[in-house]
Amino acid sequence: MPPRPIFVVAGVGSGSGTGGASARVFLNAGYRVALIARGSDSLTKFAGQLGGEAAAFPIATYNYKEVETAFSAIKKHWPDSDIRVALYNASVGIFKSFLEVTEEDLDKITDSNVKGAFAFARQAVVAFQDQSLDANGKRGTLLFTGATAATRGNSMTSAFSAGKFSVRSLSQSLAKEFGKQNIHVAHAVIDGVIATDKPHRDLSETPGDKENVGLAPESIAKSYLYLANQDRSAWTWELDLRPAHEKW
Amino acid sequence: MPPRPIFVVAGVGSGSGTGGASARVFLNAGYRVALIARGSDSLTKFAGQLGGEAAAFPIATYNYKEVETAFSAIKKHWPDSDIRVALYNASVGIFKSFLEVTEEDLDKITDSNVKGAFAFARQAVVAFQDQSLDANGKRGTLLFTGATAATRGNSMTSAFSAGKFSVRSLSQSLAKEFGKQNIHVAHAVIDGVIATDKPHRDLSETPGDKENVGLAPESIAKSYLYLANQDRSAWTWELDLRPAHEKW
Amino acid sequence: MPPRPIFVVAGVGSGSGTGGASARVFLNAGYRVALIARGSDSLTKFAGQLGGEAAAFPIATYNYKEVETAFSAIKKHWPDSDIRVALYNASVGIFKSFLEVTEEDLDKITDSNVKGAFAFARQAVVAFQDQSLDANGKRGTLLFTGATAATRGNSMTSAFSAGKFSVRSLSQSLAKEFGKQNIHVAHAVIDGVIATDKPHRDLSETPGDKENVGLAPESIAKSYLYLANQDRSAWTWELDLRPAHEKW
Amino acid sequence: MPPRPIFVVAGVGSGSGTGGASARVFLNAGYRVALIARGSDSLTKFAGQLGGEAAAFPIATYNYKEVETAFSAIKKHWPDSDIRVALYNASVGIFKSFLEVTEEDLDKITDSNVKGAFAFARQAVVAFQDQSLDANGKRGTLLFTGATAATRGNSMTSAFSAGKFSVRSLSQSLAKEFGKQNIHVAHAVIDGVIATDKPHRDLSETPGDKENVGLAPESIAKSYLYLANQDRSAWTWELDLRPAHEKW
Repeated sequence: MPPRPIFVVAGVGSGSGTGGASARVFLNAGYRVALIARGSDSLTKFAGQLGGEAAAFPIATYNYKEVETAFSAIKKHWPDSDIRVALYNASVGIFKSFLEVTEEDLDKITDSNVKGAFAFARQAVVAFQDQSLDANGKRGTLLFTGATAATRGNSMTSAFSAGKFSVRSLSQSLAKEFGKQNIHVAHAVIDGVIATDKPHRDLSETPGDKENVGLAPESIAKSYLYLANQDRSAWTWELDLRPAHEKW
Repeated sequence: MPPRPIFVVAGVGSGSGTGGASARVFLNAGYRVALIARGSDSLTKFAGQLGGEAAAFPIATYNYKEVETAFSAIKKHWPDSDIRVALYNASVGIFKSFLEVTEEDLDKITDSNVKGAFAFARQAVVAFQDQSLDANGKRGTLLFTGATAATRGNSMTSAFSAGKFSVRSLSQSLAKEFGKQNIHVAHAVIDGVIATDKPHRDLSETPGDKENVGLAPESIAKSYLYLANQDRSAWTWELDLRPAHEKW
Repeated sequence: MPPRPIFVVAGVGSGSGTGGASARVFLNAGYRVALIARGSDSLTKFAGQLGGEAAAFPIATYNYKEVETAFSAIKKHWPDSDIRVALYNASVGIFKSFLEVTEEDLDKITDSNVKGAFAFARQAVVAFQDQSLDANGKRGTLLFTGATAATRGNSMTSAFSAGKFSVRSLSQSLAKEFGKQNIHVAHAVIDGVIATDKPHRDLSETPGDKENVGLAPESIAKSYLYLANQDRSAWTWELDLRPAHEKW
Repeated sequence: MPPRPIFVVAGVGSGSGTGGASARVFLNAGYRVALIARGSDSLTKFAGQLGGEAAAFPIATYNYKEVETAFSAIKKHWPDSDIRVALYNASVGIFKSFLEVTEEDLDKITDSNVKGAFAFARQAVVAFQDQSLDANGKRGTLLFTGATAATRGNSMTSAFSAGKFSVRSLSQSLAKEFGKQNIHVAHAVIDGVIATDKPHRDLSETPGDKENVGLAPESIAKSYLYLANQDRSAWTWELDLRPAHEKW
């Protein structure tokens, strides 16, 4: 039996949001889970909750060097496993009127959504290129968490959208460049409020009212698992995700 | 145990394409399959191949009356089952230089892509509205097969795109109007050549080179099954599907 | 001095809207104006108001034969002039909840927005192909009036959007196919309420509050004149137009 | 007679491209022209060629402080004039395979397309807010030069597109936030090769073959003048511009 493949996720926060849910969903689907985030305390705690097939790889900031170091550590930690899925979920939520946006805000945005996204994508692509085709005919899947703000700017989102547009653009450039190397790149447009404080549970078994208006992190995570499992004959670059009752 | 839910698909052709593959995939997933198409001979034959849980409901043309009659017949055929998924896959492939497009071509296009799509959607929505929420928090899922030509016009596609744009528009209008009634509407942009003459087999188990360049109907069908299973907290209106090596 | 070029506009109504304003703006810019609309009474009256360089060419419906007859009559009326600009402004405003849309509504939509648009475009393209390059390096300009509903479907616009999407698609297909023949095709997305009952006046000289919230037909018409005057080095396929205070 | 209004353009280069052509076109239309660019030598020379109504305001880099200093100098230079039009045309053309993109490339991209664009927009908006409505009902017009790469990523454009997407996003956010203050923001998608070495001449008078395949900077500049002159009743946020024979 081959060793469990690795799922790398950057942007985990406290574990209650999309990154954390994705860690759980991929863990349950048979992956080893490598957690990357800024700030080691909550990350290590969350890794501990997930158990022995998860490990924390904290970084100080999302630049090329730090992200490369993290991926090297991941490969060293599980030398016999392939990195098959990588999710870039890091983001900085800055919602301000344009004239209140500072140069420091822009640094945060470009660090996480331009430099960080490029740095993470580079490590994922390089790792995938070394690997053979899996049963679905792919070397690996690189996923990006997008937002409505990735598809249109708005009054309070000049800074946030600038970063999210960049990530979307990157994901499309990568999908086109690396599809022919059987590397799958996808972008999910999350259009609605993510219910990040929701407890971990199977929503399909207990539908309630809240699920009509807020995105359950687990439901987003299941979409990521679906994308990772798409065979090479029919790959999705982009899909949108929103609650049933969302006005759009 | 509740009776099997019904999957209705319009636009089945000979059974070797997306409509036929969807019939097989939903049948295997536990659905009863109602086949709608113009021309009864090949349809009845295909239904026979699928076995006792499939039935043919041929129509002469995709207008309001014929489509209503077909849905009435479906409900009468399986009175104890809910119609849970409906796929509008009918299309007319007219690819001509603009000056060669005739008024008759436009009639074909609007019959299948405007009138037919509206007629089918009406029956699906009306059927869904009568049903209770399922385990995923939805009353039903209405799917449309789109194409690259649904998102941009091009030199040889003035007629074809006009119809495909209409279907895409309809799918978005419906998604917005009926989402709050827990009816899920989705549109798949098929961007590439569908390998319609491919034998039925599980591509995930035997990846080959052809899957890099042509969309396997079964892979498209699996996407439809995935969309049908999305819980109400995170619904996709639109996703694109293309082979790994597609240039786009 | 060469004879005045001809501006053909379809969809003039009572003359107070976009079609009528375009007739006035192009007339003032030195064009002869050919008015096409369904219903001859108001059309003939409006032509009379415009004076001797305008003429009415009423039709019963927007099909291939009627539109061809109208263009033949235009060329016969002004045999020494070129048709240099053609604007398709005909539309049918049907705004209904999806379940209230009838098959007759769809006929109206497809007659005006599919068949009519194709028929009009065909006559314009054929006329342009016979003409030499003008000073801007083009044989002719074909314009389409679009709407927000041409770019996204919505709850009350399933029927209206289906038609407007088709027109937008057609305009793009034509722009791609006939650009290399130096025929310019453009589509204007009117995003807001058109102040159709506004008197004819130069808004640039007397700015007032109403202009912040409603589109003046004359302002739309000036955009059409601008598009017609773009030289072949930098053609616009699509632009949006909305009032300064529009929320979007 | 009121003093001539000011046109500020950032990103002029040697004067042979879009920025330079825009300077000439607005100068001829009665504007004073403030030139901003990195590198003072060619800028001062170009200003000298334009004559007494033009002046150079070189900066070292496009950050908040430098751009603010430049705008202060402009207002001090022409204290009696309003800044009515501002064009952000600065860009860094980095076209590389993704794995060749360096962190330094990304710094260049984000400096010019994120920080620089935000810094320039801030100064323009602040200047406009202090001014009264002009004859077109606007306080000022802020223009951005975009590219095809602003609307889709591609194999060699991961870095370039990331910046161009950001600029497009910013322009839309600003258009929505400041439209209600009668500040007009627009974005031009230049889709094709700009013929930057073309001599200054009126293309509408001498159409030639080159204009079918390359964008004349003067033609782009005329589009900017048109946008600046749109009255508040019908503003364009985005238009595309491409040569007649461009394949797209």
